[in-house]
Amino acid sequence: ISVVGGDYVLTEKVARAPYGKDETEDFLYYPDVVVKPKNTQEVQAVVKYCNEHLIPLTTRGAGSGLAGGALPVNAGVVLAMERFDSIIDIDTQNLQVTVEPGVITQVLQEAVQEVGLFYPPDPSSRGICFIGGNVATSAGGPKAVKYGVVKDYVLNLEVVLASGEVIWTGANTLKNSTGYNLTQLFVGSEGTLGVVTKIVLKLIPLPRLSYLMLASFESPESACAAVSAIFRAGVTPSAVEFMERDALEWSIDYIGGESSFDIADSTKSQLLIEVDGNHEEALMQDCETITGVLEQFDCGEILFADSDAQKDELWTLRRNVGHAVKHNSVYKEEDTVVPRAYLPKLLKGVKALGDKYNFKSGCYGHAGDGNLHVNIVKGDMTDKAWNEDLSKGIRELFELVKSMKGTISGEHGIGLVQKPYLDIVFSPVEMSLMRAIKTTFDPNNILNPNKIV
Amino acid sequence: ISVVGGDYVLTEKVARAPYGKDETEDFLYYPDVVVKPKNTQEVQAVVKYCNEHLIPLTTRGAGSGLAGGALPVNAGVVLAMERFDSIIDIDTQNLQVTVEPGVITQVLQEAVQEVGLFYPPDPSSRGICFIGGNVATSAGGPKAVKYGVVKDYVLNLEVVLASGEVIWTGANTLKNSTGYNLTQLFVGSEGTLGVVTKIVLKLIPLPRLSYLMLASFESPESACAAVSAIFRAGVTPSAVEFMERDALEWSIDYIGGESSFDIADSTKSQLLIEVDGNHEEALMQDCETITGVLEQFDCGEILFADSDAQKDELWTLRRNVGHAVKHNSVYKEEDTVVPRAYLPKLLKGVKALGDKYNFKSGCYGHAGDGNLHVNIVKGDMTDKAWNEDLSKGIRELFELVKSMKGTISGEHGIGLVQKPYLDIVFSPVEMSLMRAIKTTFDPNNILNPNKIV
Repeated sequence: ISVVGGDYVLTEKVARAPYGKDETEDFLYYPDVVVKPKNTQEVQAVVKYCNEHLIPLTTRGAGSGLAGGALPVNAGVVLAMERFDSIIDIDTQNLQVTVEPGVITQVLQEAVQEVGLFYPPDPSSRGICFIGGNVATSAGGPKAVKYGVVKDYVLNLEVVLASGEVIWTGANTLKNSTGYNLTQLFVGSEGTLGVVTKIVLKLIPLPRLSYLMLASFESPESACAAVSAIFRAGVTPSAVEFMERDALEWSIDYIGGESSFDIADSTKSQLLIEVDGNHEEALMQDCETITGVLEQFDCGEILFADSDAQKDELWTLRRNVGHAVKHNSVYKEEDTVVPRAYLPKLLKGVKALGDKYNFKSGCYGHAGDGNLHVNIVKGDMTDKAWNEDLSKGIRELFELVKSMKGTISGEHGIGLVQKPYLDIVFSPVEMSLMRAIKTTFDPNNILNPNKIV
Repeated sequence: ISVVGGDYVLTEKVARAPYGKDETEDFLYYPDVVVKPKNTQEVQAVVKYCNEHLIPLTTRGAGSGLAGGALPVNAGVVLAMERFDSIIDIDTQNLQVTVEPGVITQVLQEAVQEVGLFYPPDPSSRGICFIGGNVATSAGGPKAVKYGVVKDYVLNLEVVLASGEVIWTGANTLKNSTGYNLTQLFVGSEGTLGVVTKIVLKLIPLPRLSYLMLASFESPESACAAVSAIFRAGVTPSAVEFMERDALEWSIDYIGGESSFDIADSTKSQLLIEVDGNHEEALMQDCETITGVLEQFDCGEILFADSDAQKDELWTLRRNVGHAVKHNSVYKEEDTVVPRAYLPKLLKGVKALGDKYNFKSGCYGHAGDGNLHVNIVKGDMTDKAWNEDLSKGIRELFELVKSMKGTISGEHGIGLVQKPYLDIVFSPVEMSLMRAIKTTFDPNNILNPNKIV
C-alpha cells in the first residue's frame, strides 16, 4: 500500500478471485494479494520486496492465456499490469512503437493503423489480450505465416529483474549483433525471468488490399496437404487457417446461428486463405495460383469474400472457434506445431489417438505455420478419464509431434499445463540448461514459480 | 590425433599462421594447435578434452570476420570447421535446409535456388564465408531490410556444449513457444557458449524478378534522409544500400578501373535500391513510387540497371567496397546501427568526429536497416594516433550511436575489437547478466575466451 496506494491493492477474497483464473480449463488459484503498479519504479519496489521476503510474484496481463502461465499457483502476489496501459510513442519516422505491457493488442494495432502502419501479430484474443502477455508467450495468430510472430517484432524491452534492478535488453534497431540476445531470452519466458515494463516493437507499412477465400474439402488430410503445396507454388499468403467442420459449425452457433454462406453436406474441413499487398492485379494472380493448387487437392466449393462485411464475418467465425469450443464443454487445448508438410500426418494421428484413448477433438489452427490447435472436449468423459487417463493420450500426441521434429507449443507457451510434458521435447541436459538460466535470473525462484522449469 | 587423425592436426608454425588471422585489421595470434574435426562426435571429444584440461578452444569458420571473433587470442586450440561442409538435406516439402556450419554461404544459396527456394541473408563475404560464422554473428547483408538477418532464419541448432554434451536448441518449426529460446541465445554468441555442429534454416519461395537502380545525390544527408521516406511511402525494397562517392570509386578501381556508367562530378553519395517479387507490374509501380520519393530529396541521375550483367556489376561493386577500402590502407571498420531515420545525423556526426580526431572515413552500408559501416583508414596517421588516440574518437562515435538508441554492432559482432566499448551500450547490471550466462554455459571459460564478455 505504501508503494502503489490502497486503491491498487486487493486483499478481499472476492476481489482476488478474478486474478486467480485465466482461460485455461477451469483452474482457480487464489493469490494472497493483488497489486496494481502504475510505473516501473512501483514494479521495482514490489519485486524487490518480494525478493527480499521470498514471496512468489506472478505477473499478469489480461488473463487470456491458454497454458495457465498467469495462474498464481504458489499464491503470493499477483502483479496485475492493467494500469500499464499507455502507448508511449508511435515513431512514424522509424516505424517503431514504444508501448506499455498492459495495452490491449487490438488497441495498439488500431492506433498504428491510423497512421498507415501495421503491427501484424494478431492472436485470436486480440480484442482482450495485453501486448505484454503476447510478449510473454511469443504469441502468434493467423498472420504469422507471412509476417512472423511476436518475437519477430520485439526490438527492445525494459525489464525489472528479480533483484529490482532495471535493464534494457537491446537497442531500438532492426539489426543487433551486440552481445547475447537478452531480448529473445525474455520473449516467451512467461514472466519467469523478469517483469517487462516497456516494449519497443517494429512496425511495417500497412498493406492496402486483401482478399479472403474459404475453401471446402471432403478430406481433412487433403486440406492440410494443400497448404504445403501453396507455398511450393511460390505464393506466401497472409493467412492459411484450417478448421474442421465441427469447429466452424460450433463457431457459427456461438456467434448467433446464421452465416451468409452454406456448408455442403460433404464438407469435412475448410481452409480460410488470405492474401494481402498493395497491387490488385498481383493479388488476383496469387489468388488464381492458389485456386489452381487447391483444385489439385480435391477442393470443393471456394467462396471468395465479396465484401468487407463478409471478410469480417469469416474472420469473426475463425477467431471465435476457441470460445465456441469452450462454450460447449470443459476442454484442453493443445498447441501442437510441426513442419507444415507433416500436418496431414499429425491430424490423422490425433484422430487415431482419440479412438485409442476415447476422446473427441475439434482441430483448427494456423495451418500455414504447421500449428494445429487440438481441442479435446470433456463432453461425457468421467472425471477419472479426464484427469488421469487423458494425460497418457496427450503424452502420446506430443511424442508423435516430437517424432516429426515439431514441438508442444507454437504460440501459447508452456505455463502450468504443458510443464509435465516438457521431458518429451527436451533432454535432461537441455532441461538443466533452462533451469540454470532460470536460477541465474531469479536465484530465489520468486518470479512465476512452478512454470516452464 | 587419436580423435581426428594426424592429417587433421596442424602443429607447424607456418601451418598454424593462417588460423591466427581473420579480416580484422592486421591481427595475428598463433594458436598452439589447429584441429579439424569431421563430425559431431569428434567435436565432442575435442571439446571435452579441452574442458577437462582447461585449454582455450576457439571455433573458426572461414576467417572472414571483421571483429576478431575467430582470433585465438589466448592461443590453445583452433577448432577449424572447414570439413563440416555438407548440405545434409534440402527439404522442399517443408521449405527448410539442414546444413553443416562449414558450408560456404553462397554455395548454400545456390543449392537451394536450384530447387526454387531462397535463403536471403547475404553478407558481402558470401562467396567465402561459412554459414556457421554467419550464425555466430547473426550476419546480415543487403537483403536484410526486407528479409531479415540470419537470426530470422535459424530454426534449430545442434550444439556441443563446453561439457562435451550435445543438445538441440529447439524444433524444426516456424513457431515455437516451448521453453526459453536457446536457439537465439546461441545465434550471435560468437562461439562463446558452445560449438554449433548442425543448423536448420527456414527457406522461402524464390522471387522471380528484381529491379535495381542506382541513385546519385549531391548531399549524403539527403541520400540518407530519402531512405526513411521510401518505407513511409509504403514500399519495402529488398535492398537499400548507401555508398559515399569515395567508397564507390575505390571499389571501381579495385575491381578493374572501369564501370559501365559515369558518375557526375557533383555526386557525393549514392543509393543502390533493389525491389524484388513475382509480379512485373507491381514492381514497376514500386519503382515509380521510389523514384517519386527520391526526387523529393534532391536526387540527381537515377540509373536503372538494364541487364543482368549491369545488375551483377553494381552488386559486385557494392560487395567489394570493404575489400577496396582494405586494399588502400590498414583500417578499422565500425558496424554502427541506429533507427533508420537517424542515419543523416549519424553520418554528420561521423564526419565531425573525423575532423575532431583527425581521421578519414569512408562510409557505406545497409541504409535500409540503419546499419552504417564506418571505415576509418589509417592512411598517414601515426601509429600512436592509430593505436591510442583513435579509440577516444571511436568511443565518442559509439556514444553518439547509443544516444540515438542504436548500438555498436548491427551484423559483425563484438569479438575482440569492440569488446572495450561494450560499457557504452550495456549497464553494469546488463554486463553482469551476460557474464552470468557465459559462466552458466562455459564454467571453465574455455570457449573463445576474451570475447564479448
